[in-house]
Amino acid sequence: MTDLDASPRAGTPTRVQAGPASPTAAAQTAHRPLTGPGAILTEGLLHDWQHRNREASLPLALRQLEVAGNLDNLRAAAVAGRDGVAAGPGRGGYHGPVFMDSDLYKTLEAIGWELARDPDSGTGQTLAGFAASAVALLEAAQQDDGYLDSFIQVSGEPRYGRLSSSHEMYCAGHLIQAAVAMARTPGHDELAGRLLAVARRLADHLVATFAGGEKGLDGHPEVETALAELYRETGHRPYLDLAKQFVDQRGHGLAGESGRGHRYLQDHLPVRDAVTEEGHAVRALYLEAGVTDVASETGDAELLATSIRRWEDTVTAKTYLTGGNGSRHSDEAFGDRFELPPDRAYNETCAAIANFHWSWRLLLATGQARYADLMERLLYNAFGASISTDGQRFFYVNPLQRRHDHVEEDEEARRHEWFSCACCPPNIMRLLAALQHYLATTAGDTLYLHQFTGARVQAALAGGPLAVTMTAGLPWSGRVSIQVEQAPDGPCGLALRVPSWSTPPQLLINGEPAAAEAADGYLTVTRVWRPGDVLAWTFTLTPRWVYPHPRIDAVRGCAAIERGPLVYCFEQVDQPDGTDLDDLALVAGSGLVDQPAELPGIGPTVLVETEARPLRAGRPGELPYLTAFPPQAPGPAQRATALPYFQWDNRDGRPMRVWLPAIMA
Amino acid sequence: MTDLDASPRAGTPTRVQAGPASPTAAAQTAHRPLTGPGAILTEGLLHDWQHRNREASLPLALRQLEVAGNLDNLRAAAVAGRDGVAAGPGRGGYHGPVFMDSDLYKTLEAIGWELARDPDSGTGQTLAGFAASAVALLEAAQQDDGYLDSFIQVSGEPRYGRLSSSHEMYCAGHLIQAAVAMARTPGHDELAGRLLAVARRLADHLVATFAGGEKGLDGHPEVETALAELYRETGHRPYLDLAKQFVDQRGHGLAGESGRGHRYLQDHLPVRDAVTEEGHAVRALYLEAGVTDVASETGDAELLATSIRRWEDTVTAKTYLTGGNGSRHSDEAFGDRFELPPDRAYNETCAAIANFHWSWRLLLATGQARYADLMERLLYNAFGASISTDGQRFFYVNPLQRRHDHVEEDEEARRHEWFSCACCPPNIMRLLAALQHYLATTAGDTLYLHQFTGARVQAALAGGPLAVTMTAGLPWSGRVSIQVEQAPDGPCGLALRVPSWSTPPQLLINGEPAAAEAADGYLTVTRVWRPGDVLAWTFTLTPRWVYPHPRIDAVRGCAAIERGPLVYCFEQVDQPDGTDLDDLALVAGSGLVDQPAELPGIGPTVLVETEARPLRAGRPGELPYLTAFPPQAPGPAQRATALPYFQWDNRDGRPMRVWLPAIMA
Repeated sequence: MTDLDASPRAGTPTRVQAGPASPTAAAQTAHRPLTGPGAILTEGLLHDWQHRNREASLPLALRQLEVAGNLDNLRAAAVAGRDGVAAGPGRGGYHGPVFMDSDLYKTLEAIGWELARDPDSGTGQTLAGFAASAVALLEAAQQDDGYLDSFIQVSGEPRYGRLSSSHEMYCAGHLIQAAVAMARTPGHDELAGRLLAVARRLADHLVATFAGGEKGLDGHPEVETALAELYRETGHRPYLDLAKQFVDQRGHGLAGESGRGHRYLQDHLPVRDAVTEEGHAVRALYLEAGVTDVASETGDAELLATSIRRWEDTVTAKTYLTGGNGSRHSDEAFGDRFELPPDRAYNETCAAIANFHWSWRLLLATGQARYADLMERLLYNAFGASISTDGQRFFYVNPLQRRHDHVEEDEEARRHEWFSCACCPPNIMRLLAALQHYLATTAGDTLYLHQFTGARVQAALAGGPLAVTMTAGLPWSGRVSIQVEQAPDGPCGLALRVPSWSTPPQLLINGEPAAAEAADGYLTVTRVWRPGDVLAWTFTLTPRWVYPHPRIDAVRGCAAIERGPLVYCFEQVDQPDGTDLDDLALVAGSGLVDQPAELPGIGPTVLVETEARPLRAGRPGELPYLTAFPPQAPGPAQRATALPYFQWDNRDGRPMRVWLPAIMA
Repeated sequence: MTDLDASPRAGTPTRVQAGPASPTAAAQTAHRPLTGPGAILTEGLLHDWQHRNREASLPLALRQLEVAGNLDNLRAAAVAGRDGVAAGPGRGGYHGPVFMDSDLYKTLEAIGWELARDPDSGTGQTLAGFAASAVALLEAAQQDDGYLDSFIQVSGEPRYGRLSSSHEMYCAGHLIQAAVAMARTPGHDELAGRLLAVARRLADHLVATFAGGEKGLDGHPEVETALAELYRETGHRPYLDLAKQFVDQRGHGLAGESGRGHRYLQDHLPVRDAVTEEGHAVRALYLEAGVTDVASETGDAELLATSIRRWEDTVTAKTYLTGGNGSRHSDEAFGDRFELPPDRAYNETCAAIANFHWSWRLLLATGQARYADLMERLLYNAFGASISTDGQRFFYVNPLQRRHDHVEEDEEARRHEWFSCACCPPNIMRLLAALQHYLATTAGDTLYLHQFTGARVQAALAGGPLAVTMTAGLPWSGRVSIQVEQAPDGPCGLALRVPSWSTPPQLLINGEPAAAEAADGYLTVTRVWRPGDVLAWTFTLTPRWVYPHPRIDAVRGCAAIERGPLVYCFEQVDQPDGTDLDDLALVAGSGLVDQPAELPGIGPTVLVETEARPLRAGRPGELPYLTAFPPQAPGPAQRATALPYFQWDNRDGRPMRVWLPAIMA
């Protein structure tokens, strides 16, 4: 069952290195991702996150998959398969929620991307060994006709019998993505081939079962983007056709009854008719990744336009300052337009990842900087905050405010090592393991740099390879330099995104001011580049005040602080003794002073200080409604200290706020 | 099984008319409820609500209990009981959630209170006929040892096997309350005796099963207050002892695992240690009714003090302007202190009812007007809004804001005729049917009037009966007059609550200014009253601005309007064409003009007009975060019209807001 098709991806055979969402040569996209050596993170915060992910987070996942029973579920499925009988109705010893397999698959995807890095190190050998035994387990558990789902096999429930909640194709999608990741990463060819074969057998089973019919849709989108990616990897058109079918069939009740309505499953309206995101945020955003993949591969500009319309609506009315999505704990859902409470923000980590995936696909499709802008905001804030400094604890929910004594049910609202529903941690791991693939793209003879960090970047332009070494201090300092290592003989372009938080910087080439063309949010310098050429500039990272649009009811009258790509927050622990964060107002527009610091439990950071004043305290025993407008500046001036939001909750569990009441200076 | 005990309630035998929460003569309470003829609503809004409840809502409930399967469940239980076998594990044809019996019991309680009014009218005969057949059904379904729960009997699940969620004792509590209501209402003696016998057999079964042991607690408090009431009605001390035991045992995990933690069930802390309400709001508030009953009957001042402490904390930090409680859809829960979002307010109707019950008990225990103040706020706002003008549709959730196109899952966020979880409608009905019992109390030789509406009130004071006819235009007009019909020979007091929204009015006796003693939120006139004496005054109902305490993040920078006891709201339908309610700011402090009106679909009301200005519109496709503080008054002045919150959603499903952004005049 080894793959025999030639890959259509950029006209190259299978096993050419590539990253996530690599369109075929025929796809309608404005930009292309890098292939071949591509990008490598060499230093800076993103490199450190990727390294931490490999050395601290992934080993934790390997332990947890054993402890939580994910591997045991597949072992039980293998036994059930070998004996030719299912365990019969019931759970039959199955552990955890029905989608436990997907936690393993996301971990395998992370390992897939990681297999290119330090394969001979201790961690590299551990990861490869785990992958080898996991693949063997999957081969053993997979049924003869290609079906594979440990919950169904162990419980004896009928296949595809309750697609609204069984997550069978959701799990299949993650298996496919793991196989695609391993197939796109050099080395471990035999293992990659075996995992791809498992994934293809399952995909072929899906095609045989669902193609051309109306037998149902998975309640949790994910398989759409996975099938499109498998098509890209294999050139096998039925996978893309099935992805397109699933996208087109949504909105007619085929996903069934979830008990939470059709919106929850994005099955309330055809995709082409929907104008705003509704229901479960992660489902909605995974679906959009599939929609964009299908639109790009089929050249369906109309379908693409509907996804862009929803992206714009989401940005305008359903996105937190951190980039996060999902305003409600109930149903883990998007809320109404402009319903953006900071305290009850759900902002599931998986939603940030899903929007990152979606925005990446729209960036490829359109070449517009605004998608990379949002990816940056997501990466450094909504996503970045989900991981503890030590890489060993994770947030599932990412609010912008935590009050005194806050718990969720009986649980302290802090990061946890793992979850009974553990979708987020391995999702974090697969994104970080592939992070370098999202730095840059190409269009024609231009290399576009979207994110700025320490990296080596090599692009195969039409005129030949362009290789550069990028040095950047973001998010802490704004200096960026790009040193050309190798370049085509003829002219080619180096384009840099101008972040939405920055004015266009003055570019220097080899120390001399250089002209650049500004378009679509990029500055492009086109010339004959020579090895040793250095393109340099400095982004201004002066801290700035941010205010909510008046339509956002939940943070009316508040202000927040940003610096470069970072959203800041105030933690109780950083405020002067005797200050109650919930009684503090910021003097908006007052001076903001940034200062590098090294904090215990956090490490390097840049703090921002500003002026604040205490609000008047409450009146015990009386209703909190007044007959006079609350006083604006009742207390004496004092200092308040903010730190980057992504670094919060690394010291204690006391209050945090991104938005504070604003007193006008 | 007819009751043989003498009732200890005020030293009178059983079948003396009384209302809910009537303490025994030995109870430690500052005030006493009326007994005997007590109060009768004669005219005005509360009378009309009670009449509508009887003529429109209760007949609807009788139909729905048949349609939804509540009666069929008990019929199936009766068959299972007759055949001596349970249906075996599974639902065995059982319909609906496990607590379906309680919907019937609440309806029976409403009928119990109603049986004193117009028994010979068509509706009276319908209600009595329904009650008779329901009591016969309960007698048939009750098992020989007194156990009665249709879910357990029909499904065959073990009794008390999963008390965290089975609601067995919750249902038992509502059965007991229905029986107590019927026992305290004149007429229908034989039926009342039979229902009380059923309730006592079940209560005796609970005593036999749980008294003195640690066999568990119901996950949904309710039986505590019911058992205390049954003790009051029967004088049988083991009922009170079991209520006290259940109160004392809470907080040690005896309610079991709900899947939502111990807080959800108020089982995370002993009652005496808890300082704030947590978890499911209705459960928490029903528990407090039981706590207060137990404290009053056992003279446990320390226990009472903990309940008062939590009531104060709830008022200060967890109560909406409407009086509602419950800030979260997730777990239908109280939120953090000062977490009071208007749009996602849960404010379950049952929570308003439960707090009304609790506050009534604290009013009896302490004689302080603040409890009647909150009852008034709850009654006219959080509770009042739960019913449509025609009495045929109900809110389960009572937010203070509804945005454009808002749905909950797939359901339009409007009132519904009934619910799959139908706890609220029959709860509304039992409160309205007993409404007159909450108007007045006595303490020594003084009659305290807490709510002002058209009513005849008769109190048995030590010196003899004091009977008055009250005329009051509330909530529309502020004129109140009390005409004495019968009075003791010696001096006695007439006390009136001065609502928190009013200054102390000038009292007139027979048209002449009269002095009154002010204490505990009451004005008391003590004198020798003569038939024909008239005590009159006028509350000022000028509309007023209200502002949120700065600690409430969710409505910072907003203003609302109240008039007398009524909270006002703005509905889109009342604003000028071309105005978008979500883009409107109020000019806070500007003039408020009230005007009586008659609205289609609503009937009589008083509207309030004020000055408003449109806010600036959004920027499509961009994040809703600005680098400059949003402008304060960008648009031209226009009028905005508010109507009483309790009358909202009787015309269309468009936006509504209680709080609007405030521009300072």
